[in-house]
Amino acid sequence: MTNASNFTALHYAQRPFLLPNAWDVASAVLLADAGFPAIGTTSLGVTAAAGLPDGVGAGRDLTLALVHDLVRRLSVPLTVDLEGGYSDDPPTVAALATELAGLGVAGINLEDGRSDGGLRRAEEHAAVISAVAIGAPELFINARTDTYWLSVGPDDQRLDETLRRLAAYRHAGATGVFIPGLTDLADTATVVKSVALPVNVLCRPDGDLSALAAVGVARVSTGSSLYRHALAAAVSVADAARGGRRLQRAEPVDYAYLQNSLSARRETREPGACADG
Amino acid sequence: MTNASNFTALHYAQRPFLLPNAWDVASAVLLADAGFPAIGTTSLGVTAAAGLPDGVGAGRDLTLALVHDLVRRLSVPLTVDLEGGYSDDPPTVAALATELAGLGVAGINLEDGRSDGGLRRAEEHAAVISAVAIGAPELFINARTDTYWLSVGPDDQRLDETLRRLAAYRHAGATGVFIPGLTDLADTATVVKSVALPVNVLCRPDGDLSALAAVGVARVSTGSSLYRHALAAAVSVADAARGGRRLQRAEPVDYAYLQNSLSARRETREPGACADG
Repeated sequence: MTNASNFTALHYAQRPFLLPNAWDVASAVLLADAGFPAIGTTSLGVTAAAGLPDGVGAGRDLTLALVHDLVRRLSVPLTVDLEGGYSDDPPTVAALATELAGLGVAGINLEDGRSDGGLRRAEEHAAVISAVAIGAPELFINARTDTYWLSVGPDDQRLDETLRRLAAYRHAGATGVFIPGLTDLADTATVVKSVALPVNVLCRPDGDLSALAAVGVARVSTGSSLYRHALAAAVSVADAARGGRRLQRAEPVDYAYLQNSLSARRETREPGACADG
Repeated sequence: MTNASNFTALHYAQRPFLLPNAWDVASAVLLADAGFPAIGTTSLGVTAAAGLPDGVGAGRDLTLALVHDLVRRLSVPLTVDLEGGYSDDPPTVAALATELAGLGVAGINLEDGRSDGGLRRAEEHAAVISAVAIGAPELFINARTDTYWLSVGPDDQRLDETLRRLAAYRHAGATGVFIPGLTDLADTATVVKSVALPVNVLCRPDGDLSALAAVGVARVSTGSSLYRHALAAAVSVADAARGGRRLQRAEPVDYAYLQNSLSARRETREPGACADG
């Protein structure tokens, strides 16, 4: 079996599989060493490591460079978080996806959320997915909708809008769907029954995989949380060392705080501001 | 005061200061946000993040790229771990140091340890330090000896060899000295009394800063431990999520294990090995 068909098979097992999302080579290698059957990337992690904000398309070159490093090193399938594909032009996204498939990447995530907090029109996102499915048919295309993640529209219409979008993405050629922010188990069960594709959600803060297994979830991702836990651990250890204390248990750095502190600094500091030091 | 003179002043305070070592932009920014008065880099972290081994000079371009990002963002002094300077040629190292000083870097570390586990001859390392001190007189030059770190020579001659080297580095123009692996407090006190420059050691696993303060240590570095704690936290969180558990307390990834697992993979896997996936 190829990497891609191995990866697809993971989505049709009895139980959901846990996909850890790495941000650099060392984290990917260590996670693979820990026995995870596939490795994902996290766009937040990849961009934040370089000091760039997530979700605005800044991570294309960084992600490609990381992929080049990882396909040489990982013996398990790799799936790549491409944000929105770094373009609204379907052929451009398809060309990138084809390049990744040629490198040995098993899957990609493509999200309909935009950096302004809104969503790409479903038909536009479906056109991107369709172009990718035609250009790189071996890829596992995880079509992500950010209806819940970005809390778009009225609460009581969110599930219907989600089902409408996922159906469109499935018809366009998606091989899986991802709904970060979807936590209600009854709604998750409805999505699983409705979409007829493997369903991916984020892992729950309480760590309960059984509840997700019971409603038929196929993949559970860590998203950016591993990188945020990593940063929190670093700051926590440094703080303990400063205080002459042993390490205490750490909490993850908040997503929005991380995003804001990076993007704010990026805009307000001039190159060379310290150059007279 | 300039960044560099601010940084030097930290070494002459009543108590040692804790220098946290960052590996990427996000970790540096968060550590600065946490109130540390200066930020260092860690060559292990910078190279491991890109999947390269530490201590063999592979990190030059990565380190320069990170410095370019950090000097625009940090309002506290930055000191850069340059391993051995990425060259044995004094003018070449001096040119790099001058470039960093021009970017606003406040200090650098230069180590005499070689990738083969031995040490550069003291006179050779002193020549590198001298060239840097002449070329970039505003830099805080932290001359590192790896006598203890690499356990070079007989145990009962290590302190004398260390004192001999540090004296040579001081005469060459070093503004501080760093002895990773030196943990014995009596030996540390001897070094402080002998060298007549600010002394830097690694933080202790028990977190005890008071003992280091009592013997007159000026700077306490975290070295690579923050990055290794970060990786450990990521793997630990992923493992807990896989097992349906909440996060348990994490231990740092072992330095040698990390080095070996990255460098071994680098040599034994071919580019494109997964490309037929």
